[in-house]
Amino acid sequence: VSFGARVNPTKVRGVTVHRLDYVQDLRGDLSVGEFERDIPFPVRRYFIVFDVPSEKVRGQHAHRECHQFLICVKGRCSVVADDGVVRQEFLLDSPATGLYLPPMTWATQYRYSPDAALLVFASHYYDAADYIRDHAEFVSAALQVSQDR
Amino acid sequence: VSFGARVNPTKVRGVTVHRLDYVQDLRGDLSVGEFERDIPFPVRRYFIVFDVPSEKVRGQHAHRECHQFLICVKGRCSVVADDGVVRQEFLLDSPATGLYLPPMTWATQYRYSPDAALLVFASHYYDAADYIRDHAEFVSAALQVSQDR
Repeated sequence: VSFGARVNPTKVRGVTVHRLDYVQDLRGDLSVGEFERDIPFPVRRYFIVFDVPSEKVRGQHAHRECHQFLICVKGRCSVVADDGVVRQEFLLDSPATGLYLPPMTWATQYRYSPDAALLVFASHYYDAADYIRDHAEFVSAALQVSQDR
Repeated sequence: VSFGARVNPTKVRGVTVHRLDYVQDLRGDLSVGEFERDIPFPVRRYFIVFDVPSEKVRGQHAHRECHQFLICVKGRCSVVADDGVVRQEFLLDSPATGLYLPPMTWATQYRYSPDAALLVFASHYYDAADYIRDHAEFVSAALQVSQDR
């Protein structure tokens, strides 16, 4: 993945890597982003994950409707994104890097550094019915999405 | 300030302290909030401030139109909020604590711990014209707002 442009395509359907504004200053560092501009959807919910033991794996699900945007604002972690056919791993190690995951993307996060803080923006409020937690079910549903397009 | 309720009033006009969901789990800790529900306005922009030297003071301005919501998601910092008549200091030392600053609130942040990460949600995109950077001008404008209400 090249980080030359503001928005960079990946091998995984719809997944993009974004370069965000990050300002280092004697008065402190600033990471900043605007919704519907830098983050490509209106945001209704945020969550932050931290103090994840390094051996733990998080995620391992897809969302039917919800868009997500991931920024590791402290430390680093790795994300595997999977469209049902192709998967790709991304290292998030800078507050200047954002990873956009469209709906129907299976995602797994792991290899959190001890100081890691992963900020996630979501397009929808929490809804348990939006989760697909079985990978075989996901692959089948993703195939259907591809055929419908 | 009592933290018993979800939303707690303060001495400063319109400023409220919010208790947010914060889940501690063996797989990592989760701080979560929903816009227009937990955070009392639609959010268009976020920024995170970190690596602020402990002797530095940030903020020292008010916004004419922009609402802000501050969460210190790592470490701690202090915020002084001022409505032009009354000022109050708040210690933000938990991802479960949010501080809502309505428009026309003068705010100063200081005493950042070395590991502090201050997450701010804003109701408006960045606009230099929205800032009041002179305290005397702010007090005069805030008095006008009070009289108009």
